[in-house]
Amino acid sequence: MKTQVAIIGGGPSGLMLSQLLNKAGIETVILERSTRDHVLSRIRAGILEWGAVDLLREAGVGARMDVEGIPHDGCYLTDEELMVHIDFRELTGKQVMVYGQTEVTTDLYAAQDAMGTTILHGVQDVAIHDLDQAQSYVTFVHDGQEKRLDCLFVAGCDGFHGVSRKTIPEEKRREFERVYPFGWLGILSRTPPVHDELIYSNSRHGFALASMRNENLVRYYVQVPLTDTVDDWSDDRFWEEFTRRIPSEAAARLITGPSIEKSIAPLRSFVSEPLRWGNLFLVGDAAHIVPPTGAKGLNLAASDVFYLHQALIDAVKGGSRTGIDGYSELALKRIWKAMRFSWQMTTMLHRFEGEDSFAEQMRKSTLQHLAESETARRELAENYIGLPY
Amino acid sequence: MKTQVAIIGGGPSGLMLSQLLNKAGIETVILERSTRDHVLSRIRAGILEWGAVDLLREAGVGARMDVEGIPHDGCYLTDEELMVHIDFRELTGKQVMVYGQTEVTTDLYAAQDAMGTTILHGVQDVAIHDLDQAQSYVTFVHDGQEKRLDCLFVAGCDGFHGVSRKTIPEEKRREFERVYPFGWLGILSRTPPVHDELIYSNSRHGFALASMRNENLVRYYVQVPLTDTVDDWSDDRFWEEFTRRIPSEAAARLITGPSIEKSIAPLRSFVSEPLRWGNLFLVGDAAHIVPPTGAKGLNLAASDVFYLHQALIDAVKGGSRTGIDGYSELALKRIWKAMRFSWQMTTMLHRFEGEDSFAEQMRKSTLQHLAESETARRELAENYIGLPY
Repeated sequence: MKTQVAIIGGGPSGLMLSQLLNKAGIETVILERSTRDHVLSRIRAGILEWGAVDLLREAGVGARMDVEGIPHDGCYLTDEELMVHIDFRELTGKQVMVYGQTEVTTDLYAAQDAMGTTILHGVQDVAIHDLDQAQSYVTFVHDGQEKRLDCLFVAGCDGFHGVSRKTIPEEKRREFERVYPFGWLGILSRTPPVHDELIYSNSRHGFALASMRNENLVRYYVQVPLTDTVDDWSDDRFWEEFTRRIPSEAAARLITGPSIEKSIAPLRSFVSEPLRWGNLFLVGDAAHIVPPTGAKGLNLAASDVFYLHQALIDAVKGGSRTGIDGYSELALKRIWKAMRFSWQMTTMLHRFEGEDSFAEQMRKSTLQHLAESETARRELAENYIGLPY
Repeated sequence: MKTQVAIIGGGPSGLMLSQLLNKAGIETVILERSTRDHVLSRIRAGILEWGAVDLLREAGVGARMDVEGIPHDGCYLTDEELMVHIDFRELTGKQVMVYGQTEVTTDLYAAQDAMGTTILHGVQDVAIHDLDQAQSYVTFVHDGQEKRLDCLFVAGCDGFHGVSRKTIPEEKRREFERVYPFGWLGILSRTPPVHDELIYSNSRHGFALASMRNENLVRYYVQVPLTDTVDDWSDDRFWEEFTRRIPSEAAARLITGPSIEKSIAPLRSFVSEPLRWGNLFLVGDAAHIVPPTGAKGLNLAASDVFYLHQALIDAVKGGSRTGIDGYSELALKRIWKAMRFSWQMTTMLHRFEGEDSFAEQMRKSTLQHLAESETARRELAENYIGLPY
């Protein structure tokens, strides 16, 4: 087999990149370990920055999002005493879009199918070769057979546990990591959202987030110890805990229902530098993880794809290597800013085991400052809606 | 002896309060443990917010400050790669004033002398009594004699180690504290400042600050381990370390000279609530300490004095207790905002022993964000020049 760009990983990053490259006349082959159903079953992000919205439109997959997505003009940050509205539209002139990652992935698969691109599922034993040569190749097992895919470039879109990052020699990688001492227990439930905008709540019982996917599908979270498992959390226990962590005026309106998905995710900040190794380019979670506070994960993958698709088009069609030579530095610049924002939001909104009372006062004081300072709200809003590509 | 307001402590807080009360026709007696020379020998803050500048003018002690003080339009935040200018004037329309605490205190003593107020020095064994009665009194030893001062109100301006805060029963106080794992080694030297504005430098060798008192008197600092003593730091060692921690373009211009003062101060955030206990009102360091990063210590004392002098005038002259009843809450609101800012500046600019590489990246990323975002610079500038009283 032969292609121009081999894409390892068929999640939203790989699909988006494939879509944009094929639209520009560049051939791709996507190698995905899981089945399509499995990819679509993963409940992940729900908030798109407007830059990601525009990128999906540019990729030709914006039609259903523009009908079913819910633009949000702001969000709330709260504690026991204050409920601070961050009005994105007033502060920045921009919005974000509520549209689940599952929907984005569904739309991308449909568009890829319509274009007739190659997506191989159930691929195993992927290995990437000759990254320092003019041409590279990927070997893998598919349908029980060993195969080889020759290519000009490899895009590593295979997430944190994927093979792509690990293909870069360990001594050539620089990794930065912060593991937070808690996780998020999230549930999905077919109930109407408790509020028409997201509520990030810093309660004395721990953090909670009231998020949503659509008018009848909510995604709610509570901060839990890392030692907890899903079995520790019956639906009843979840609703009780969630109710006492959100502002009372929201709690009074809360409609509960059975969970249709429930999972616990640890919170981590992680960056591996560089993003490029010879003909290999890392994209999204393969190179960096943010804690979900601030909704930057999928959006950072989108900006990586934005930079990389332009660079690859320049390289393959225009014969210019300037874009691919600059990709790692350009993408990392934006990544580190989102890392900072996600870390700050996480620190500002969670209780840390064993923390002193001063830490709690700093969280309260930060919220008080946000309540009173338009500049502080603007600073948060500009980061939340997404810094420019 | 009898007075209307007994003021414990004759540092800048006590003097400023005395000055403003006497100007309004309220009698005070200041009780100070040290000699006047000792008070004047303490090297402390050097930057006044404009609110403090206006307050000193209102107190009738602004004349020399307005001639000799140096208004600053901004400051610099730097690391090895970036030198970010925070332009206070452009971002907020306001400035700060470089004028040392020693000068402020000198001017206040002169003004108090001219007004003929009572300041007792060398006072020992101060005890405060009957705070829950209509009238209170203070006992103390002065010139070898036990004395009693009857008063309506007591202002506790006697700093962190003073007796005033401890007069509030321990079970009625709520204290919040963060001790930082490093100190500042500061030197005073009769040399021209290395730059016309302050430089806060986050270097890989640790924090440094290039501050000044006037055109030929600098105050420079380096972050040091808490285990260090002044004896560990010869002038030569200080200059060598300071030079490698400031940006090279500043280092190239640095003029060194003998130190005329050298001291190490630990960094601490501390707040004791409430600020009022019956007829006692805590002011400045008696109730709260900030780390010096961001220059908020003296300025918070000034805003406490601002609120308290108005409240006491209302109570003594106007017969209204609304002001004194609201003092603690009003002052604390502003105090917590300055605590947040000082903590954030400290965290953003210092190396913490044993920190992970992610922490360093967050500092770099914060500076990068400041370099690129006018909103982030405005947020910092608004806090630096001082939030409104």
